[in-house]
Amino acid sequence: MASPSEYLDALIRELNKLPGIGSKSAARAAFHLLEMSDANVKQLLNTIIALKENVLECSLCGGISDTPVCSICTDPSRQQQTLCVIEDKKALITIEKTGTYKGIYHVLGGVISPLDGIGPDDIRFPQLVERCKSESIKEVIMATNPTIEGDATVLYSLKVLKPLGIRVMRLARGLPVGADIDFTDVATISKSLLERSEVL
Amino acid sequence: MASPSEYLDALIRELNKLPGIGSKSAARAAFHLLEMSDANVKQLLNTIIALKENVLECSLCGGISDTPVCSICTDPSRQQQTLCVIEDKKALITIEKTGTYKGIYHVLGGVISPLDGIGPDDIRFPQLVERCKSESIKEVIMATNPTIEGDATVLYSLKVLKPLGIRVMRLARGLPVGADIDFTDVATISKSLLERSEVL
Repeated sequence: MASPSEYLDALIRELNKLPGIGSKSAARAAFHLLEMSDANVKQLLNTIIALKENVLECSLCGGISDTPVCSICTDPSRQQQTLCVIEDKKALITIEKTGTYKGIYHVLGGVISPLDGIGPDDIRFPQLVERCKSESIKEVIMATNPTIEGDATVLYSLKVLKPLGIRVMRLARGLPVGADIDFTDVATISKSLLERSEVL
Repeated sequence: MASPSEYLDALIRELNKLPGIGSKSAARAAFHLLEMSDANVKQLLNTIIALKENVLECSLCGGISDTPVCSICTDPSRQQQTLCVIEDKKALITIEKTGTYKGIYHVLGGVISPLDGIGPDDIRFPQLVERCKSESIKEVIMATNPTIEGDATVLYSLKVLKPLGIRVMRLARGLPVGADIDFTDVATISKSLLERSEVL
């Protein structure tokens, strides 16, 4: 179904390509853009252009950065002995939002997945090993997703990093805060039983 | 909480201003834009610019259009005797999507709301009356939202348009298709009882 404007249809199609934006959100956003002032639309466009022109990959952690080495890697107040290993750049933002993590990061850019032909050398795993050898890292927190591939990456990391004298940790798995046990899946309940913690 | 990139933070803030796009969707879209090819980003930007430069308001129905009079108003296959009255331009797209309406439209650009000081002359109501007098319209379908203001607009339209010999209709109110009666609000169930239809 075409609307009376090909230009509107074209924009709805473009916005719909973005992840997390369905056809209804795309239509709503397109109408909003149509009614926004030219100045505000220009600001949005310039913000997108600035992002594309200026954002780099941190040469140390592999996360996003406005400078060759990112503001987290160079922050003297962050604990340089604790390294949080994440699958992708976005996870860094998600963890930073909690405000509870004070260490540094390493972005793998993927996970080990033999079925997809992805081995340790296909992701930034060698760089992780290198950092564990050359930096003063004592603890690695594996914050990969709780999937088969994520767990495989955790186990592989343990095998490689433990001999280097590094403590390899993983994120706790259990009931999401605010969840209802009756609506929680069996695998999660099993994990929450196996990895139960003592009430102190 | 700031990410290691001010440019990314700025874009997330901009995207978050769009309706229907929360902070998580905004972050996801911003990361996606970061990883999109320059060519694809340019295409998106050009689509937004084309929208702003080319989309007009149809001088007849008040809907969106690429030409002074829109493709629906000038479509000879649409029934010119049936006029669907809607609150805003977006509702036209929503109704067109159903594919079941074959008449023409009139966009009010709002609803009558005495509490907000909005009377018939503050929206495109005089134009509606004018069209009902000058065009061959026999039936007006009021497709305003089922709110107090929407209903007030329906009643006011009845008062003004019925004396012109026009049949004034409203959209059916009742159970949404696929709904569960136990989870439907009392007002909707009341309407569905009052406006029940015979099984034929």
